[in-house]
Amino acid sequence: MKIVHSPQVMTAWSLRLRREGVTVGFVPTMGALHDGHRALIRAARLQCDALVVSIFVNPTQFGPTEDLAKYPRPLANDRRLCRAEGVDLCFEPSVAAMYPEGFQTTVAVPAIARRWEGAARPQHFAGVATVVTKLFGMVRPDIALFGQKDYQQAALIRRLVNDLNMGVAIIVHPTVREKDGLAMSSRNVYLSPEQRTIAATLYKSLQAGAEVIRKGTTDIQAIQLAMATMIEQEPAVTVDYLVACDPLTLDPLSSVTSRALLLGAVRLGSVRLIDNLVVAAPRTRISQRCG
Amino acid sequence: MKIVHSPQVMTAWSLRLRREGVTVGFVPTMGALHDGHRALIRAARLQCDALVVSIFVNPTQFGPTEDLAKYPRPLANDRRLCRAEGVDLCFEPSVAAMYPEGFQTTVAVPAIARRWEGAARPQHFAGVATVVTKLFGMVRPDIALFGQKDYQQAALIRRLVNDLNMGVAIIVHPTVREKDGLAMSSRNVYLSPEQRTIAATLYKSLQAGAEVIRKGTTDIQAIQLAMATMIEQEPAVTVDYLVACDPLTLDPLSSVTSRALLLGAVRLGSVRLIDNLVVAAPRTRISQRCG
Repeated sequence: MKIVHSPQVMTAWSLRLRREGVTVGFVPTMGALHDGHRALIRAARLQCDALVVSIFVNPTQFGPTEDLAKYPRPLANDRRLCRAEGVDLCFEPSVAAMYPEGFQTTVAVPAIARRWEGAARPQHFAGVATVVTKLFGMVRPDIALFGQKDYQQAALIRRLVNDLNMGVAIIVHPTVREKDGLAMSSRNVYLSPEQRTIAATLYKSLQAGAEVIRKGTTDIQAIQLAMATMIEQEPAVTVDYLVACDPLTLDPLSSVTSRALLLGAVRLGSVRLIDNLVVAAPRTRISQRCG
Repeated sequence: MKIVHSPQVMTAWSLRLRREGVTVGFVPTMGALHDGHRALIRAARLQCDALVVSIFVNPTQFGPTEDLAKYPRPLANDRRLCRAEGVDLCFEPSVAAMYPEGFQTTVAVPAIARRWEGAARPQHFAGVATVVTKLFGMVRPDIALFGQKDYQQAALIRRLVNDLNMGVAIIVHPTVREKDGLAMSSRNVYLSPEQRTIAATLYKSLQAGAEVIRKGTTDIQAIQLAMATMIEQEPAVTVDYLVACDPLTLDPLSSVTSRALLLGAVRLGSVRLIDNLVVAAPRTRISQRCG
């Protein structure tokens, strides 16, 4: 596996391969790789000839009170995982190479970014949109893979790539979960043993909402009540949001007539967890079968 | 010459050529082509194998009180000029293809955009930065050429391409002028015969500033006074700005020690004209000769 720090070397490598007709796949990460990343890398491995994983803890997507300094950086482990999964190139740009003096351009996707994680973490999505645009410029992939756990991020990137005509196919890979349903995340290492045992409540509350939808309820209040009732059983959990919204625009739904995105963010002490489920209303499934 | 409306067809054409090792040059325009554009196209023709000119009057870079509706659109003439100059492909996307429903992403280059034209025309440079990013995504050029007349625009695009790692070489071509020095512009057709005779005053005032610098003056007040004195000889001309600034950052200079960008915008009735000159202080020239 090649390890590359220089953006210029990265771009030259990719352009040379693409000129030869080789398809380049890309999994951008902030490192601290877990089985969720592994699943992304394996899915990418099946869909391209040459596979790039980037490891870059992007400072511009962290807020001033967030965990940039303590974000885990187990680089040797990360490289080992990449090597074991057949990654061809591990791209590890420095902060100085990414944001040299005079850097000032930003990319914004305002409608998708304004709610939920965007409301809770101002500047987060501007940081994400800008760094992904830059990474795509450096890596020049044919396809790029993102995890469904960060649903709003994936929706934003899909919009961005389409709006700016980047010509990168975006693939969203299903969330990988621990045995009790907790979505895998590099931030799970911050959980104390006590917090870890109750962290799966977020997933259970999303499941409770999904169950109500699958039984035919279209009423948003009833769906959100089912999720709230489940999460309130754990008083240590503080809800940021726990909502049913449109899977494309991420706007709140007034009723569930086709597909719904159940989206949640909670805090457990100082640890923030997010998760989501996409659920189809039973009528949709019937009409799809008939149509 | 091929005429293409579809962004997808445009991208496919360019990618196929680039895979074959053909270099693609690009001159983005809003049409109403004049001898300034012709010079850009000829310069481009010398530096690439395949040459694309786009014609797109971009609504998002016009302010609500500006001349979008009446902006000249002599398409047949424009195509004739392109054909005569050996353009390979004329790309004419529709507004709907450029900004489909749901479009929302914007690109900003805040430090370069905040002064001068950016202050006079809010949203103008956001519109320019976004449409150029999109056009580069659609056309995938190796090189792109811009006219020096829109100096701030060219500086912004250079910054943008660098910041977002687009890998397009940006070439700025010297301003082409009428016999009396008036910079060629598609908007010159708005000038009445009386306005036309005095329009070259802007260029003369920039020359007056340049003359003072070449004589060794480093004092900004003296340079700006020379420009102001010249322009005030024409009372029909209203000055928006007429300044000496840094050619890279476009920040105002406190004294001219190396190169200065003399930058001006004036109004003649409802017509707005811009122009600029880049001038080297005599000391710079000597030190360059010795270094």
